[in-house]
Amino acid sequence: MNRILTLFFVTILVFSCKNTDEKQNITDKKHSETVSTPITAIVIHGGAGTILKENMTDSLEKAYKTKLEEAVTKGHEILKSGGSATEAVVETLTILEDSPLFNAGKGAVFTHDETNEMDASIMDGSNLNAGAVAGVMHIKNPIRLAFEVMENSPHVLLSGRGAERFAQARNFQLVPPSYFYTENRFQSLQKVKKKESNQTAFVDPSIKDSKFGTVGCVALDQNGNIAAGTSTGGMTNKRWNRIGDSPLIGAGTYANNKTCGVSSTGWGEYFIRGMVAHDISAMMEYKGVSLQEASEEVIQKKIPALGGDGGIVALDKEGNIAMEFNTAGMYRAYINTEGELYIGIYKE
Amino acid sequence: MNRILTLFFVTILVFSCKNTDEKQNITDKKHSETVSTPITAIVIHGGAGTILKENMTDSLEKAYKTKLEEAVTKGHEILKSGGSATEAVVETLTILEDSPLFNAGKGAVFTHDETNEMDASIMDGSNLNAGAVAGVMHIKNPIRLAFEVMENSPHVLLSGRGAERFAQARNFQLVPPSYFYTENRFQSLQKVKKKESNQTAFVDPSIKDSKFGTVGCVALDQNGNIAAGTSTGGMTNKRWNRIGDSPLIGAGTYANNKTCGVSSTGWGEYFIRGMVAHDISAMMEYKGVSLQEASEEVIQKKIPALGGDGGIVALDKEGNIAMEFNTAGMYRAYINTEGELYIGIYKE
Repeated sequence: MNRILTLFFVTILVFSCKNTDEKQNITDKKHSETVSTPITAIVIHGGAGTILKENMTDSLEKAYKTKLEEAVTKGHEILKSGGSATEAVVETLTILEDSPLFNAGKGAVFTHDETNEMDASIMDGSNLNAGAVAGVMHIKNPIRLAFEVMENSPHVLLSGRGAERFAQARNFQLVPPSYFYTENRFQSLQKVKKKESNQTAFVDPSIKDSKFGTVGCVALDQNGNIAAGTSTGGMTNKRWNRIGDSPLIGAGTYANNKTCGVSSTGWGEYFIRGMVAHDISAMMEYKGVSLQEASEEVIQKKIPALGGDGGIVALDKEGNIAMEFNTAGMYRAYINTEGELYIGIYKE
Repeated sequence: MNRILTLFFVTILVFSCKNTDEKQNITDKKHSETVSTPITAIVIHGGAGTILKENMTDSLEKAYKTKLEEAVTKGHEILKSGGSATEAVVETLTILEDSPLFNAGKGAVFTHDETNEMDASIMDGSNLNAGAVAGVMHIKNPIRLAFEVMENSPHVLLSGRGAERFAQARNFQLVPPSYFYTENRFQSLQKVKKKESNQTAFVDPSIKDSKFGTVGCVALDQNGNIAAGTSTGGMTNKRWNRIGDSPLIGAGTYANNKTCGVSSTGWGEYFIRGMVAHDISAMMEYKGVSLQEASEEVIQKKIPALGGDGGIVALDKEGNIAMEFNTAGMYRAYINTEGELYIGIYKE
């Protein structure tokens, strides 16, 4: 009897010690089953930061929720009607870029020089193709230009005037800087500049207090393809053609059908140093943890340990959704595989 | 007897199934022992590409080897005399930038518009701090400006004119574009432009044939700190203020004392999509593989699977060195923990 028990124990151990190749096979099988099931999911953010209920009016809160719902519903409709994840990301982010509520497109914050310099990126998890633009000043929808770079250039990242020359060659209309003027953002810049009195030219204490209003979207389409995209005006009062994490693949945006898609928002410098979007994917791929575990580890431990703050939205190939942030709030919404709509602003 | 054998078998299995936390402890112990041993190591590259013996003259080969030896020896002397890994990286890369042999600083290739737009980045593995510049046109040593961004700005990545305004504010002398003129690189541009006859404005078939001459350095200092840096003129005939992988943390450059430091060279777009430098580190951190295994997996399997080519140099916290490339050759050199000098150009 003892011998039988021991053998039973051995058998269990042998099975629990199966090599990773076999685990991979099991995962691959699951994946191909997933691909054949027409599930869809979409998750978006409109920035993380010091977003507190006591600083919010009912009408403003309603305006945010309405716009988040409009955007996520648009993306979901595209997915439901068989559209691709990249299409859903572009169309969803276009709605958020066109709203002055968010720091992207119309509503982009002002630089130190009172200009608007916008960044955006998109990644297609089916082939790891990617496109991004940094520091564009005359592009109504930077996410559409990022998509164009991905689809119709041999490059991943174009910047400044060069990116706009590419846009013109691809028949994008340039818009005048006045399109991006919003009184609200302009006054924010003046306020930040006033605070600077004690500042050297090289360290900007106001960064920590800047609102982050980056927008992002991750979608899973009926073919099992994941795409992620991010768009931003960057940080109020930014200088020296600073580029943040939003246009950087692996930092602000990452998508890989094998693991997940991620869009980041927060203090970009820390998200670059932490390689946030790729780190979550790598932790899933190499450590075998879930999307939620990886997202928590990166956003609640690794980024705060560096001194940074912000958040991410993400989803995996099974449509599981993660929305993780270490700030007071993050504008966010999803429609999951069950078709359930969720909209959130504050911590819960 | 059978029962004893079975129990013995169980014991072995139990040990082989030890959880990863325990493995981590063992690694941590090793690490603290390593830190107290004053070992140093340094590895550099001067670009990977179609570098073939039959296309090389003896005198040119000698010139490359002499310059690689000068650079790696300089960095090694700094490390041996107790200098930091970041200092070794900056001084070593400055020598390579100042040589017209390499595509960085003096010797940078020409853009489509007959300008020189240079990128550089550096990362300090002790604190994950990083600095980078993209598209600078008047900076003699872009790696020094990247270091300045890391040390004396709240940002990671500055670009174009803004990066140069920052440089001026930090008392860098700007040099005229003529400083970067080399007849050799200018003729390369003319040759590539001639080849373009059949080309649309948006897909550049000459990219695949462009020489990659990016320079990079990874160093391990006596305090156990790893730093990595990369500098480049990008690709001949590049347009639209294209930014490659060299100034991008996680793609062209990554350093983390916990794992390794990496500098990449090759077809930048694929190195961004593959997140090459961070992927090697993540594979070591989460999968527990060696630097050599991770480097081979990424450079010999993952990047070719995407369609890209190039190589990396890297070292880990124990001073193990990896120099992996999937092209015909890569200019490279190291001085390892034993003080042995190695210089290589072709495949071996």
